[in-house]
Amino acid sequence: MMIVMKEGATQEQIQAVVGRVESVGCSAHVSQGELLTVIGAIGERDRVTALGLEGAPGVDHLVPILKPYKLASAQFRKGERSVIEVDGRKVGGDHFTLIAGPCTVESREQTLAVARTVADSGAAMLRGGAYKPRTSPYSFQGLGAEGLRFLQEAKDETGLPVVTEVMDARDISDVAEVADVIQIGARNMQNYPLLSEVGRTGIPVLLKRGLASTLEELLMAAEYVLKEGNERVILCERGIRTFETGYRFTLDLLAVPALHELSHLPVVIDPSHAAGRRDWVKPMSLAAAAAGADGIIVEVHNEPEEAICDGPQALPTEEFADYAEQVRQVAEVAGKAVSTV
Amino acid sequence: MMIVMKEGATQEQIQAVVGRVESVGCSAHVSQGELLTVIGAIGERDRVTALGLEGAPGVDHLVPILKPYKLASAQFRKGERSVIEVDGRKVGGDHFTLIAGPCTVESREQTLAVARTVADSGAAMLRGGAYKPRTSPYSFQGLGAEGLRFLQEAKDETGLPVVTEVMDARDISDVAEVADVIQIGARNMQNYPLLSEVGRTGIPVLLKRGLASTLEELLMAAEYVLKEGNERVILCERGIRTFETGYRFTLDLLAVPALHELSHLPVVIDPSHAAGRRDWVKPMSLAAAAAGADGIIVEVHNEPEEAICDGPQALPTEEFADYAEQVRQVAEVAGKAVSTV
Amino acid sequence: MMIVMKEGATQEQIQAVVGRVESVGCSAHVSQGELLTVIGAIGERDRVTALGLEGAPGVDHLVPILKPYKLASAQFRKGERSVIEVDGRKVGGDHFTLIAGPCTVESREQTLAVARTVADSGAAMLRGGAYKPRTSPYSFQGLGAEGLRFLQEAKDETGLPVVTEVMDARDISDVAEVADVIQIGARNMQNYPLLSEVGRTGIPVLLKRGLASTLEELLMAAEYVLKEGNERVILCERGIRTFETGYRFTLDLLAVPALHELSHLPVVIDPSHAAGRRDWVKPMSLAAAAAGADGIIVEVHNEPEEAICDGPQALPTEEFADYAEQVRQVAEVAGKAVSTV
Amino acid sequence: MMIVMKEGATQEQIQAVVGRVESVGCSAHVSQGELLTVIGAIGERDRVTALGLEGAPGVDHLVPILKPYKLASAQFRKGERSVIEVDGRKVGGDHFTLIAGPCTVESREQTLAVARTVADSGAAMLRGGAYKPRTSPYSFQGLGAEGLRFLQEAKDETGLPVVTEVMDARDISDVAEVADVIQIGARNMQNYPLLSEVGRTGIPVLLKRGLASTLEELLMAAEYVLKEGNERVILCERGIRTFETGYRFTLDLLAVPALHELSHLPVVIDPSHAAGRRDWVKPMSLAAAAAGADGIIVEVHNEPEEAICDGPQALPTEEFADYAEQVRQVAEVAGKAVSTV
Repeated sequence: MMIVMKEGATQEQIQAVVGRVESVGCSAHVSQGELLTVIGAIGERDRVTALGLEGAPGVDHLVPILKPYKLASAQFRKGERSVIEVDGRKVGGDHFTLIAGPCTVESREQTLAVARTVADSGAAMLRGGAYKPRTSPYSFQGLGAEGLRFLQEAKDETGLPVVTEVMDARDISDVAEVADVIQIGARNMQNYPLLSEVGRTGIPVLLKRGLASTLEELLMAAEYVLKEGNERVILCERGIRTFETGYRFTLDLLAVPALHELSHLPVVIDPSHAAGRRDWVKPMSLAAAAAGADGIIVEVHNEPEEAICDGPQALPTEEFADYAEQVRQVAEVAGKAVSTV
Repeated sequence: MMIVMKEGATQEQIQAVVGRVESVGCSAHVSQGELLTVIGAIGERDRVTALGLEGAPGVDHLVPILKPYKLASAQFRKGERSVIEVDGRKVGGDHFTLIAGPCTVESREQTLAVARTVADSGAAMLRGGAYKPRTSPYSFQGLGAEGLRFLQEAKDETGLPVVTEVMDARDISDVAEVADVIQIGARNMQNYPLLSEVGRTGIPVLLKRGLASTLEELLMAAEYVLKEGNERVILCERGIRTFETGYRFTLDLLAVPALHELSHLPVVIDPSHAAGRRDWVKPMSLAAAAAGADGIIVEVHNEPEEAICDGPQALPTEEFADYAEQVRQVAEVAGKAVSTV
Repeated sequence: MMIVMKEGATQEQIQAVVGRVESVGCSAHVSQGELLTVIGAIGERDRVTALGLEGAPGVDHLVPILKPYKLASAQFRKGERSVIEVDGRKVGGDHFTLIAGPCTVESREQTLAVARTVADSGAAMLRGGAYKPRTSPYSFQGLGAEGLRFLQEAKDETGLPVVTEVMDARDISDVAEVADVIQIGARNMQNYPLLSEVGRTGIPVLLKRGLASTLEELLMAAEYVLKEGNERVILCERGIRTFETGYRFTLDLLAVPALHELSHLPVVIDPSHAAGRRDWVKPMSLAAAAAGADGIIVEVHNEPEEAICDGPQALPTEEFADYAEQVRQVAEVAGKAVSTV
Repeated sequence: MMIVMKEGATQEQIQAVVGRVESVGCSAHVSQGELLTVIGAIGERDRVTALGLEGAPGVDHLVPILKPYKLASAQFRKGERSVIEVDGRKVGGDHFTLIAGPCTVESREQTLAVARTVADSGAAMLRGGAYKPRTSPYSFQGLGAEGLRFLQEAKDETGLPVVTEVMDARDISDVAEVADVIQIGARNMQNYPLLSEVGRTGIPVLLKRGLASTLEELLMAAEYVLKEGNERVILCERGIRTFETGYRFTLDLLAVPALHELSHLPVVIDPSHAAGRRDWVKPMSLAAAAAGADGIIVEVHNEPEEAICDGPQALPTEEFADYAEQVRQVAEVAGKAVSTV
């Protein structure tokens, strides 16, 4: 932590800050410039933060220097990128992973139909929600355990590993029986008890960025999972909330190179929820691949107009093969090979 | 739902939209202007949304007309404001409620010391966290059950009702034994299973606005609680996330009159978390009272410099009486009387 | 304009609104649903807005229906896309236009060196600033008229049309002598006198989106130029301001398909200012091409480490040819051919 | 400037950075911690920034330490607050200044009627726009020179100093004949040629914060005016753009204490443009006074329903006296005395 003193701070004020830093067992390193003085406080960040030096006489502001996450940091793996294995599929590094499926598991037929299509067109995994976080308590909340069974059946038939969301720590054991990757949704990114519990399952986790979460907060959420000994975390950008109302969310593709610099974890993009409209999903998918993403998680539906949830943003199954081919071409220009079994 | 057609949409396109609206059991009401046509779809909003008409030929955009929340709406109580009773204290209407206490319950001594001070200066309730959501997994996570016991003791001694947070549905029964008001934190505003469970306890709920949640989303979250038959929900604005980095969050005081127009529920302000600094808490508290808030929930500490969590933003106990008096004066100009027993 | 009445609005309230709408020469069309009533006000949007019906008894909210821009709208050209000619180069439609050059014109040598490189690698136009808007009054403000001369010389030698910024209406005549495209910077997007004056020159305009401007506001700014009879406006997304501090701005690529739907005007992307870092410029450039942009305007420097302004984000000239080739490949997957003479 | 090196940065990388810092005439001060090394670069901030060290091997990130504004900084006046005199009225310090009048000057009668009312109720200055920045080129753009004459007449009759906006440097000489305070609107906050020109007039300036401008950018804009030798700058917060669509802008009252800490300049609040609705203007005005603002600039109209521009947010003249009295009461609790002649 760097403590920047105001211009004209007195020696007494500087010494008072030094004294308080040392009082919590940290060491203080004073660096006096022409105009102002900066005090480096070396030791536990939390302890110095807790001193509340922001308000202290002569103090201008505090600058945290150390990153608050450790296991998620690029330094933790000395710059090497993590390649995560999920049932034989590789995520991260030079691999590009296409995860596709319905937003919501609605029926056995729908789930199997979509699963077959995406399997045929080279998707690496199947996505689908049995437990759905819905803004309205009056909306369909998912099929729950029955939905999990349909996903299991789709997996048995197609061989595709399953990515599915859990919202409630009490459902984890059920979900864990089917899921090859457990998804934590954007609204639960800072649901810390859930993160820790999911971390303890050891099952790979796809962690969506909260809609107003900074990259640092996303990595701190990942840290909750990693801390439990679960090293297989996939980060997911799915659109952030901004002033622009022309679309549901603003897809933040700079997050891809930025997260790659900060962390060793793979980064996938969800183009469906930001766009909110089918015809904008393909351009955003290609853009994600071009930006260097490690994969895409996209919604596909056999009858999008009949979908219970988020139909307007689902790609129709009949367009999926062409879509997957174009994504593959762009990923290759960006230096990635599409991940298959 | 209003479906606005593009300029130059053809009769065929208009009829196609009408047909699809009617196919899901809604009725369509076509209103042809000079330049463009608007189709009113009357029936369940979700069904029309699910049609995905955004992409349909000739459609420009959709405008939702009905508010998605019902029990939380001002109309539900025909414009009358809810006055919520908590152990004899009134929240809402003409009452101004001061809720004060430490951010985190750290020890028996600290909890009792702060509780006595705020009780003496006219606070209506005691706040304090036993379970703390922390951005970092390495930070102190609260005393848990032991913290709840200290809160019980403070309540027994001072008579102040207790407001305390729950983060995990599995802790609700423990928390419910002590809490007079259960707090849902900003990070859990859209943790729907938690909202429903808390709703089922029947204990009053203080629901904090998520840091990037719209007022409509806040009211939808309230709806999850209300739907379980729990009518005592207090809304809380605590700062939203914006581009400005000069403070932790931007306190959004327009939310007070706006929520009062949309909903019958009381609205309190948390000035501590937005400001993040003790010396900015008082101006923001006075501003909240002036804006017509139904109360304030503020952090107070007997030794802020020793606080484990958020010490920099806690008011010191010795300044609390003066603070409370100034808040009272401003609340009176705004037409409120401070709520006491 | 749609006026949505509150649930339970009385007939008197509805009639009062109708009366006021008619009093300003608009016609009112009442549409009574089961739960609520919507009044369509047909006529000039500004007149109805001026009535201030938001506060009127029984009124819930107002929904504008007609788009406030006309000449910029997709409907104005009946869905056909504008292809703008600049000295033989085409912008828009199936063309992809690469505009490259230094942020700031620093010297004759630098300008010529960069111009030669980008001309050799297939850039369609040369960018470079002689008048620079700088956040600090103490920063270098551009070479002014001398800078314009260097741009003229580069244009004479390479044949590349020149894109350069104007900030002050009093400089327009000087700039107009050299510029083939006049750039309006993000900070001046709502400098209306400047927009009108630039419109009157008849010279093509590259209009950058303000950093917190909605797409609608961008199109309204374009309308100021178009209204003067100048049809050649190129829209430019250059990053918007959000809560994320990991980069200078958040590049908003959804603006590409969204603007293409709303307007017939071409849309180019400036990847340099959002990223603020050279190594993030290429991924964002590829992403822009993949998203369907009509072009890129990018900063290139022969000695980025010596650049007076924004050196950290400039591509070095020696990497430009490879960069341009990769952008071309991605643009082709997105259905565009790179525009050359 | 502090240059934070990555964990594991080598001695070579550290020395390379030191070398580059020294190569531009700055001195480098290396501070080696347990985990990482921080290099303090002492000298001109711009020179170090221009090095583009963000991308350099081993560098993690850069932290600016010195504030980029000087004349606007609190340090410049050693913590003393500026009290600005405008024709005998004082702004800043312990004074609270109420500036009121119509949004737009529409006619002689309207201007005089409003001016009389606000003069009678103790407003210190008259506001009113003759040149109006309008989002749409089709909206009324102000009466221009004729409007200035009406303002002059109102000033002659009531003795109130006049605050009026200028948008175009070419209008400054006309505006300067009438204006006692020249207003720079939010959209022009970064119109640097305009700021410099207005600075050169020596007339006091009311500078509105851009709708997505940080406090630092606002102070940098003030610096453009101050640099010309014009010391009388009044800062104005008028609402910022956020994700919330429940109101036109989000009024950011934390800006008041924050700007008071950063700068010696007075800070006034415009509650009308953020709220956009008359009934929300009073609560926000009281909140502004409670937050410690040095004044309010508010819109008042004798016939708000007939107003050409922004009628819905204007206070009616008949309510103004009560309004002013309540604002006065709250300002007093916050320690301010209302400024009159």
